[in-house]
Amino acid sequence: MATVATEPHPTANDAFGPAAALSCRECGHRYELGPRFACEFCFGPLEIAYEFDSTRVTRDAIARGPANMWRYADLLPVPRNVAELPNMNPGLTSLVAADRLAGELGMRSLHVKDDSANPTHSFKDRVVAMAVEAARTFGFTTLSCSSTGNLAGAIGAAAARAGFESCVFIPAGLERGKVVMAAVYGGKVVALDGTYDDVNRFCSELIGDPAGEGWGFVNVNLRPYYAEGSKTLAYEIAEQLGWRLPEQIIVPIASGSQLTKIDKGFQELIKTGLVEDRPYRIFGAQASGCGPVAGAWERGHDVVQPVKPDTIAKSLAIGNPADGPYVLDVCARTGGAVAHVDDGQIVDAMKLLARTEGVFAETAGGVTTGVLRSLLAEGTLDPEAETVVLNTGDGLKTLDAVDSGVTATLAPSLDAFKDAGLL
Amino acid sequence: MATVATEPHPTANDAFGPAAALSCRECGHRYELGPRFACEFCFGPLEIAYEFDSTRVTRDAIARGPANMWRYADLLPVPRNVAELPNMNPGLTSLVAADRLAGELGMRSLHVKDDSANPTHSFKDRVVAMAVEAARTFGFTTLSCSSTGNLAGAIGAAAARAGFESCVFIPAGLERGKVVMAAVYGGKVVALDGTYDDVNRFCSELIGDPAGEGWGFVNVNLRPYYAEGSKTLAYEIAEQLGWRLPEQIIVPIASGSQLTKIDKGFQELIKTGLVEDRPYRIFGAQASGCGPVAGAWERGHDVVQPVKPDTIAKSLAIGNPADGPYVLDVCARTGGAVAHVDDGQIVDAMKLLARTEGVFAETAGGVTTGVLRSLLAEGTLDPEAETVVLNTGDGLKTLDAVDSGVTATLAPSLDAFKDAGLL
Repeated sequence: MATVATEPHPTANDAFGPAAALSCRECGHRYELGPRFACEFCFGPLEIAYEFDSTRVTRDAIARGPANMWRYADLLPVPRNVAELPNMNPGLTSLVAADRLAGELGMRSLHVKDDSANPTHSFKDRVVAMAVEAARTFGFTTLSCSSTGNLAGAIGAAAARAGFESCVFIPAGLERGKVVMAAVYGGKVVALDGTYDDVNRFCSELIGDPAGEGWGFVNVNLRPYYAEGSKTLAYEIAEQLGWRLPEQIIVPIASGSQLTKIDKGFQELIKTGLVEDRPYRIFGAQASGCGPVAGAWERGHDVVQPVKPDTIAKSLAIGNPADGPYVLDVCARTGGAVAHVDDGQIVDAMKLLARTEGVFAETAGGVTTGVLRSLLAEGTLDPEAETVVLNTGDGLKTLDAVDSGVTATLAPSLDAFKDAGLL
Repeated sequence: MATVATEPHPTANDAFGPAAALSCRECGHRYELGPRFACEFCFGPLEIAYEFDSTRVTRDAIARGPANMWRYADLLPVPRNVAELPNMNPGLTSLVAADRLAGELGMRSLHVKDDSANPTHSFKDRVVAMAVEAARTFGFTTLSCSSTGNLAGAIGAAAARAGFESCVFIPAGLERGKVVMAAVYGGKVVALDGTYDDVNRFCSELIGDPAGEGWGFVNVNLRPYYAEGSKTLAYEIAEQLGWRLPEQIIVPIASGSQLTKIDKGFQELIKTGLVEDRPYRIFGAQASGCGPVAGAWERGHDVVQPVKPDTIAKSLAIGNPADGPYVLDVCARTGGAVAHVDDGQIVDAMKLLARTEGVFAETAGGVTTGVLRSLLAEGTLDPEAETVVLNTGDGLKTLDAVDSGVTATLAPSLDAFKDAGLL
């Protein structure tokens, strides 16, 4: 099935812009661009290798691009005309200058990258946008995935927009907002009795089965393309800071892929000369109820022991994170850390972020903001350094996590209002 | 209390950019810029009159502006440095090329202006962003409003970001997502037993009472500033079409203000030479369960008889719409119409929009899309004309309107999946 390519396939090369090949992250073996995800020699994960065109990758060219992630098309495995194709066109979400939160935490400079403004209100729209383009090129007709909820919604919407069938698999018991959002676009949504890791195993079996013929599993057989979408978070943060890397960044860990791709994005910005080469520290954030990477970091291990998730941060509830070891590498190399906060701290942090900055984050945003607070308190984060914290999802999808409700219910009269003691 | 100004107050003029005065929509009487909303002579509503600076209002200058509504600051009553102030910075939401929906409806060109990408996921962020700047200038310390839900959330977030107190009033029984989103930012949320119109009356009383001292009611005493935010929908649509007015546009009607301000925005674009002067038709959309303006249109009346709302489109459930008569004027003048669809048609249209374009609209988006479909079927809308339909809110806030859920719940095994008959 596999052929080792020294020259990329010409058609694939047109469809994948600056992408030159797939490359094994473990042994470096190269493959031509195709719907493959694991090395045939060492079973390591494959990722995209590029040959960037330095005449196209300039600050000016990017500034002239569309107001979405396709402004970075020349740094991504997508065709040059990607902005004209039917796609959800996510990205270029706000980098909020979080001065009031910084004040409360005693920090000099803090920004919140708020990805809840994406079309289905999570960062997953970025990775799915990439997978859609790869699926189109490879001729897949159905988009599929294992999902903790946000991904299912992103696929439902993107499949509808681009004219694919979709069938997504979720663990039973997800938040209602996520289930409705996954289902409303008309694709199939199948709940499986088990954890996300059970759902993931199911999908791996389905890929090898004739029943999965013609199916693009965005986070399995399209994973090398899909995962590159997270690089756009790094590009946007740097551009929105005025083409400068932040000194510290706090990133949530589910599979761990997002964190490693943000590092890859920063490295590419340095290599292409878009930003100055200066040190940055990447910090990973997990929930205590699903903290396998944080546990490995604490114990100084370089392997990650799977756990059974039990946390309100369901979008991060991956007990066996595929990119866990790579996360440990990145955080160690950049001088960062991996930390965790419990459910109570998550909710407190969600409310802190809402109260100070008007950002209603998903539980995952409570995890990053909670870890920000915790690492500042213990002195691991530098309050004087320029810092970015990620909110990757939307509080409307995890309503049950916060107990907010009306202050009072009254008769519609001035007397009733004055008597209620609210003034 | 009032002084009639021939020259605008110099400080106010700096704070309000190109705004020159307040002007009565009925008798044309002018007032200096201040926290007033009704004419002292005829009780007509006041709106902003401008003196635009033609050297600043150019396509190039706008293109160089920020990727949010402040790119149009030189057309709005805000200070020139507005983009640097603490504000939610909404706007520049996607204009989706809805080719698949157009295909199903037999249309040549259709776009969906999807305002669910705003920070609190409705167009209300636009109008509140304007009110915040006016409240800052006037020295108000508390932001308040009567709201059907979306506005309450937008105020909660904007007050938190900008450091105001907030206390908002809603009718009891709103959707849970809207209530939680209003309350999570830490401001007060008071539910009143009654309809939106009862809540509105309550707020009018509170403004005249000492208890309301220092309060900016965004849709009452800040209304002239607040309402101008809706003009940015018109500007964005024209810019995103390549600086061209659409031939037909379908706009939801709650108070009716949004529709009249979109017309005002189009007129300003023509006057400033940003677009060619060509005819456009504006169509208003209401729910049958709260259709006072549609009823007046059908009967050929120029006054609007109040109704008691009974519809799932709660964000449009204003039984006594303040701008109803002006809506009738605009739709008649431009060759449009006002129409309504029932709750069943609203839900069908929400699902159609989701299935064809991946846009999960609020019930209000079901109203506009339903009216689009209905007016096409009866021949009132031209399927060959370039058309824009507005989605002003987010399906996540009206989850109960759609019955979408999982297709099946299964054991996590290939056999169970194959036996379920889903392939």
